[in-house]
Amino acid sequence: MWGGRFSGGPSDIMAAINASIGFDRRLHAQDIRGSHAHLDMLEAAGIVSATDAAAIRGGLDRVGQEIAAGRFVFKPELEDIHMNIEARLAELVGPVAGRLHTARSRNDQVATDFRLWVREEIDAVDAALADAQAAFIEKTEAWPDLPMPGFTHLQNGQPVTFGHHMLAYVEMLGRDRGRFADARRRLNESPLGAAALAGTPFPIEREMTAAALGFDRPAANSMDAVSDRDFALEFLAAGAITALHLSRFAEEVVLWTSAQFRFVSLSDAFTTGSSIMPQKRNPDAAELVRAKPGRLLGAFTALATVLKGLPLTYGKDMQEDKEPTFEAADSLMLAIAAAAGMVRDMEPDPGRLRAAAEVGHPTATDLADWLVRRLGMPFREAHRVTGELVAEADRRGLALPQLPLDAMQAVEAGIDESVYDVLSIERSIAARTSYGGTAPENVRRAAAAARERFL
Amino acid sequence: MWGGRFSGGPSDIMAAINASIGFDRRLHAQDIRGSHAHLDMLEAAGIVSATDAAAIRGGLDRVGQEIAAGRFVFKPELEDIHMNIEARLAELVGPVAGRLHTARSRNDQVATDFRLWVREEIDAVDAALADAQAAFIEKTEAWPDLPMPGFTHLQNGQPVTFGHHMLAYVEMLGRDRGRFADARRRLNESPLGAAALAGTPFPIEREMTAAALGFDRPAANSMDAVSDRDFALEFLAAGAITALHLSRFAEEVVLWTSAQFRFVSLSDAFTTGSSIMPQKRNPDAAELVRAKPGRLLGAFTALATVLKGLPLTYGKDMQEDKEPTFEAADSLMLAIAAAAGMVRDMEPDPGRLRAAAEVGHPTATDLADWLVRRLGMPFREAHRVTGELVAEADRRGLALPQLPLDAMQAVEAGIDESVYDVLSIERSIAARTSYGGTAPENVRRAAAAARERFL
Amino acid sequence: MWGGRFSGGPSDIMAAINASIGFDRRLHAQDIRGSHAHLDMLEAAGIVSATDAAAIRGGLDRVGQEIAAGRFVFKPELEDIHMNIEARLAELVGPVAGRLHTARSRNDQVATDFRLWVREEIDAVDAALADAQAAFIEKTEAWPDLPMPGFTHLQNGQPVTFGHHMLAYVEMLGRDRGRFADARRRLNESPLGAAALAGTPFPIEREMTAAALGFDRPAANSMDAVSDRDFALEFLAAGAITALHLSRFAEEVVLWTSAQFRFVSLSDAFTTGSSIMPQKRNPDAAELVRAKPGRLLGAFTALATVLKGLPLTYGKDMQEDKEPTFEAADSLMLAIAAAAGMVRDMEPDPGRLRAAAEVGHPTATDLADWLVRRLGMPFREAHRVTGELVAEADRRGLALPQLPLDAMQAVEAGIDESVYDVLSIERSIAARTSYGGTAPENVRRAAAAARERFL
Amino acid sequence: MWGGRFSGGPSDIMAAINASIGFDRRLHAQDIRGSHAHLDMLEAAGIVSATDAAAIRGGLDRVGQEIAAGRFVFKPELEDIHMNIEARLAELVGPVAGRLHTARSRNDQVATDFRLWVREEIDAVDAALADAQAAFIEKTEAWPDLPMPGFTHLQNGQPVTFGHHMLAYVEMLGRDRGRFADARRRLNESPLGAAALAGTPFPIEREMTAAALGFDRPAANSMDAVSDRDFALEFLAAGAITALHLSRFAEEVVLWTSAQFRFVSLSDAFTTGSSIMPQKRNPDAAELVRAKPGRLLGAFTALATVLKGLPLTYGKDMQEDKEPTFEAADSLMLAIAAAAGMVRDMEPDPGRLRAAAEVGHPTATDLADWLVRRLGMPFREAHRVTGELVAEADRRGLALPQLPLDAMQAVEAGIDESVYDVLSIERSIAARTSYGGTAPENVRRAAAAARERFL
Repeated sequence: MWGGRFSGGPSDIMAAINASIGFDRRLHAQDIRGSHAHLDMLEAAGIVSATDAAAIRGGLDRVGQEIAAGRFVFKPELEDIHMNIEARLAELVGPVAGRLHTARSRNDQVATDFRLWVREEIDAVDAALADAQAAFIEKTEAWPDLPMPGFTHLQNGQPVTFGHHMLAYVEMLGRDRGRFADARRRLNESPLGAAALAGTPFPIEREMTAAALGFDRPAANSMDAVSDRDFALEFLAAGAITALHLSRFAEEVVLWTSAQFRFVSLSDAFTTGSSIMPQKRNPDAAELVRAKPGRLLGAFTALATVLKGLPLTYGKDMQEDKEPTFEAADSLMLAIAAAAGMVRDMEPDPGRLRAAAEVGHPTATDLADWLVRRLGMPFREAHRVTGELVAEADRRGLALPQLPLDAMQAVEAGIDESVYDVLSIERSIAARTSYGGTAPENVRRAAAAARERFL
Repeated sequence: MWGGRFSGGPSDIMAAINASIGFDRRLHAQDIRGSHAHLDMLEAAGIVSATDAAAIRGGLDRVGQEIAAGRFVFKPELEDIHMNIEARLAELVGPVAGRLHTARSRNDQVATDFRLWVREEIDAVDAALADAQAAFIEKTEAWPDLPMPGFTHLQNGQPVTFGHHMLAYVEMLGRDRGRFADARRRLNESPLGAAALAGTPFPIEREMTAAALGFDRPAANSMDAVSDRDFALEFLAAGAITALHLSRFAEEVVLWTSAQFRFVSLSDAFTTGSSIMPQKRNPDAAELVRAKPGRLLGAFTALATVLKGLPLTYGKDMQEDKEPTFEAADSLMLAIAAAAGMVRDMEPDPGRLRAAAEVGHPTATDLADWLVRRLGMPFREAHRVTGELVAEADRRGLALPQLPLDAMQAVEAGIDESVYDVLSIERSIAARTSYGGTAPENVRRAAAAARERFL
Repeated sequence: MWGGRFSGGPSDIMAAINASIGFDRRLHAQDIRGSHAHLDMLEAAGIVSATDAAAIRGGLDRVGQEIAAGRFVFKPELEDIHMNIEARLAELVGPVAGRLHTARSRNDQVATDFRLWVREEIDAVDAALADAQAAFIEKTEAWPDLPMPGFTHLQNGQPVTFGHHMLAYVEMLGRDRGRFADARRRLNESPLGAAALAGTPFPIEREMTAAALGFDRPAANSMDAVSDRDFALEFLAAGAITALHLSRFAEEVVLWTSAQFRFVSLSDAFTTGSSIMPQKRNPDAAELVRAKPGRLLGAFTALATVLKGLPLTYGKDMQEDKEPTFEAADSLMLAIAAAAGMVRDMEPDPGRLRAAAEVGHPTATDLADWLVRRLGMPFREAHRVTGELVAEADRRGLALPQLPLDAMQAVEAGIDESVYDVLSIERSIAARTSYGGTAPENVRRAAAAARERFL
Repeated sequence: MWGGRFSGGPSDIMAAINASIGFDRRLHAQDIRGSHAHLDMLEAAGIVSATDAAAIRGGLDRVGQEIAAGRFVFKPELEDIHMNIEARLAELVGPVAGRLHTARSRNDQVATDFRLWVREEIDAVDAALADAQAAFIEKTEAWPDLPMPGFTHLQNGQPVTFGHHMLAYVEMLGRDRGRFADARRRLNESPLGAAALAGTPFPIEREMTAAALGFDRPAANSMDAVSDRDFALEFLAAGAITALHLSRFAEEVVLWTSAQFRFVSLSDAFTTGSSIMPQKRNPDAAELVRAKPGRLLGAFTALATVLKGLPLTYGKDMQEDKEPTFEAADSLMLAIAAAAGMVRDMEPDPGRLRAAAEVGHPTATDLADWLVRRLGMPFREAHRVTGELVAEADRRGLALPQLPLDAMQAVEAGIDESVYDVLSIERSIAARTSYGGTAPENVRRAAAAARERFL
């Protein structure tokens, strides 16, 4: 009936749903590190003797070595990483191992381990994002003045430079790093010493373990300390937003490498070829990066759903926090790495980009602006006149800069020869010197400033 | 900088993000089964000779045996399960292996494999849900007339029977099974033969492979066939709704086993004890079941996000379909099994349940109904009179059935002795004989009917 | 401090969070319809007299007229649509109005109203989807043999016809209609008569009200009947999948109308122009359709989150079911209508489409298939030979069909003149006659079959 | 067919899907404020003359007054709030109105308006959260030493004080405020002057408009400035986490007000009564607060889905940002207000809470700790001994503090009379003086510290 899955009866089902060692073994280093900090404090506070502490310390080191060497046997019947390590410690050093759990509970222990793990991921993500920013900045510096279409609605709006486009992503990733940094700061309180939920009568020094583990301070309320998974939620939310940014870039890579765009090319390193269609360079990496917000958003949704409506303090529901977070973190790291790799790898095609930037009278706005500045028209009036000039150019099958002066004057008598100064792609770009605008001098300055701010 | 994760350079990143063999190996049996069906058809259609077909068939069988025996070496550099099996097949039978891929592409192959996998999960889920329904029905049959509070807002509204409450879940799971059955029917079209995306010039027989694989028919449009992941989405949506139902029951188990309720008890098989607090039976399994909608909803969100805005046909984004589906299916199967186990395991406490059913004048509605039926009052007027009677009972510190007749008549002169017939819990329950109501005779009949409909 | 929002104190906050009349007024027609059915049954069962029933019936009709005429005053202090109508009914017909609520509760009433509303939406969505299918079929019939690129990874894979591409969407929407039809069937049980949660002692006829309201049968369990919101969840899940399909098409419209693709053009009716950039036809409608999965997925997530972990039966949490469902339904209807409109409106550009279909040796697969069929090569060997031929064509800057025979024979001696028969786009397309393949004769037949199946 | 919804044809569908004035009118004050800032800058930069500026300024003021007075006619055919206001301005002051749009586009305008709106909501949310914290702190100060059960798994673990439990929420809301503050800081860059997407050739002063609107600086990249909706995503993510916290408290209120718990009572202000079941105080407000994470999580999901895979810069998809954000903000404000109201309103029942705190040998951990401290046992050994003592107490039907000394000594000879000092609820609580622990002196100090930190 059950397809044999749980044929062993209730206890097998319980074991299967209850065990977390299949995934929480990933916290082994954090668990041992936390135990060391706790042990040092117990010894300093006189709760554990120097002799016992030394024995336990040696045992912990050996457990760590066994795990590192792949010799540790993880046992599902011991449920989780904490009990697996504790049991092995007892085998190694005897009953004195039992002193390590003084003034501690699995509730504060797992909260500490998981925080440490998330904090390390945040640091890794920050480094990866900084590297991706560096890649975008390098590309900006290589192409500060290469014209390309500036799209709205995937229609050419106004010309921009390739570098300017790259810098947009530097800003996004900069905000992402800010979010992770804020999450890290907020995460950085130590639950250790909250014990089961109410604190402990032992004369522990929570400041000491907090400091030893790199936390800024102990968490202020013991019940909150064991119930709180905000740090994982915030990590996932920040990760989801980051993944969205990367997906926007990935979509552009897919478009830009299509036969229709051919704005950039990717090398073999970031494409998957086909032996019978050699021109076919499938942008698989870009597509996978584009897909990754699913995983991040799914993980945030999963954990948020779990926590909804849970009364205080710890409930076993909260064991569902780790798998989504682990996977989301792995997905995010891969997506950032692949995006950075593609940025560095891709080669823009200047001719195709410049040609695309010419399509559709993209300097019409410049013409309208000229009418405002030179002839003093209200912008909306200038807008109307420009519309007529563009229509006239279309009737003649010309680009705006090719429309003869007399044809222009027939629409608006005040126009003179100097109007042509604003109608080229290069002039349009060069003129946008407002702060944050696409003029190459701005772009160069912005790239330098971005180096200062971010790298 | 990268924490050493991708120090090997772009090709390592690409390999890491691109490879799916880490998870799609789970499709090995479906892949081989699909290859057999394709091969039989190629032979029948004269596209592959009998000799070649026999050689390939033998090779496929050996590959299957190697995997079953754990002797197959999965190679990440071969990316996915399809190429891993194909490469091994070529090692085993030589170049003739290359004939198997005639008139087939990885695009229709993976779509076929994944459909077969999801279909098998649907069948397993259906069996598990039927078993869970059986458990609820058994509990109903054991307690068709045990009174308990019928809650709205977690406040006692009207008395119901324990069996009636159990049957509510039989209905929910019945709808769940209906959703999975519908999803199965809709899924059951064969993509095999759609080839890369456009069909094939080979004279293949898609009806034949469809039939061999248990599909109802070949999918009607080759582009849709390789782009479609509806079957996974629908499986996840149905699974999410199922998980929500189970979470409602799990919440009740958590409440009912609390010291405050003590409506039911669970044995050691479904609780986690504490050696120092022996009364503490933590309902860990119930909490984990309560949490599982997170995983299912997260998986649906993940896949939906991936598919949003994807142009036809296959994009590598779609490789993100499997991991969330695999995990969601495992989570769902566990949750159903644990729920069924808890239903069978739990023992209601008749005294506690009946006592709880008495709290808060739960037969006040019966009194109002009596006023309507016997005295012909409009319901709203009866409602008001009942309110006064209840207030009077409260002033005297009495339950409604204890309020003397004269006190009742002081509020409403028309009341006579027969009113007491409707005021007991048992009478209230017994009176609710409307179809679907909680009267024990109804409950018994409904349990029998449920056996008919569902088991 | 509070920005004056809730300055009136607790009761204002409670009123603000509690009132639903701001949105559930949308159920007014369903509420009155349900009351009529209930009243007819009460009269038939002798629970309400003919005189009273006539009075109430007249009152209900007047209430309906007042609402239809915009003369009804909705009062927030009466909380919801049910109490607003009941209170007005009492004003119109006096205390006899109170008889309508006999054997009924707001719990079964709102469940009935909301089901009726969702059922009507399902019917509207089905009609809209059929119309959208008709639009795709019409387009297929207009262009059954126009070649265009068949993309995988947004790279040209094999040529297909425009009609074939259109039919892929007919399949998707067909499955969508199937999901809505299944949801409708499952929804179509009447909660009316479940009363508060336990059924009622009145001799009601639930079959009668069920039939009067078009339900197939009464819901079998009273507790489930008032707790169940599956019908809304299933509607939202089906809607989310539909919206995903439409978003895929919308993405294609955005791509196809870009200057880089220009595969199709949209008229002014479905674009937003710019007075100064006349070539700019922003595909705003397509972008909005592309965005709509967000709203649908958000609504499903919202309602699923609400229901997670709710004990039976009714909880006020469930009042959060309506707003997301209302909005999602409106968004979905708009998206379908806009998609159908765009399909009918868009004009393919045959020259651009055919030219794009030529890019990248898209008939290389046909060449490989020819090598298999004519020379008996294993497919993988044919694949390799084709790769060499394509590479030779590239070296010479030629398309495959232009590569001279001697150049081909230098790679593979067995090739003869007849190979050129399979190398043109048209031949490639025409050859794909496998069921579901893109051959024009198939496409014409499939369009006719789709008319039969769907319209 | 279409149910008459879009019978008017394509243009009606387009208008219906395209128009945003139905919801973006909510940005009117921000739009006018942004226009004032832009106008002042245009005048200061000499782009608009003082005379024209004065005329426009007067017009803007009048538009604002008309809207405030409810006299403004919003026209759907003008699509959005920006065009509605601009058109009315032109009616009021003539063609000079057209000068206001110099060096500005709807793209930077809407980004500015929406940021201002979200920023104001953040400020309102922060004030509301501070008020909710104040409510929790007040409750803490009122009940710093009232014992209650400290639950894990909804089973009594160790006794805590009511105040300690309240302070857990102060911590959660404190982190929430931190997230909103960080979001505000990150949001606080001005997009105004990014124009359509590329900046502008006019000599504008973005620093000036940024300062006038309270922004810290102008956004650094014009393309990012018009594409970025991070601020809304981050607001929604922070809001979702806040709503989760409130839902945990709301669940507790639902439990605590049930007949089974009766830990606290709520007044009529936060319950919905029933005229016939006077004891029934349905905690409707708590249930609605418990449900609200659905709306917030749904909104985050919706917007994230919309943004996934969007190429730069502005796409009409982004118009889907506002409705979910508006609704989510309203839902969040209501939930915070209702939660704060319930905190202030609820009255704990000291007798019930203390009695519940006694259930299940909750001081067993204290006994184990005593064995460690006094007898020097390793904790795990003390754990085992405690288990035996508890079992003995259970055999005798006694609470731990009632177990005679000889019975204790029979298990562990080293136990003496002083053990009873740690076995009472009050002693257990008083002993937990570790930082963050539940000892009343700690709780009082923590409440005072929370006042310092948060109010």
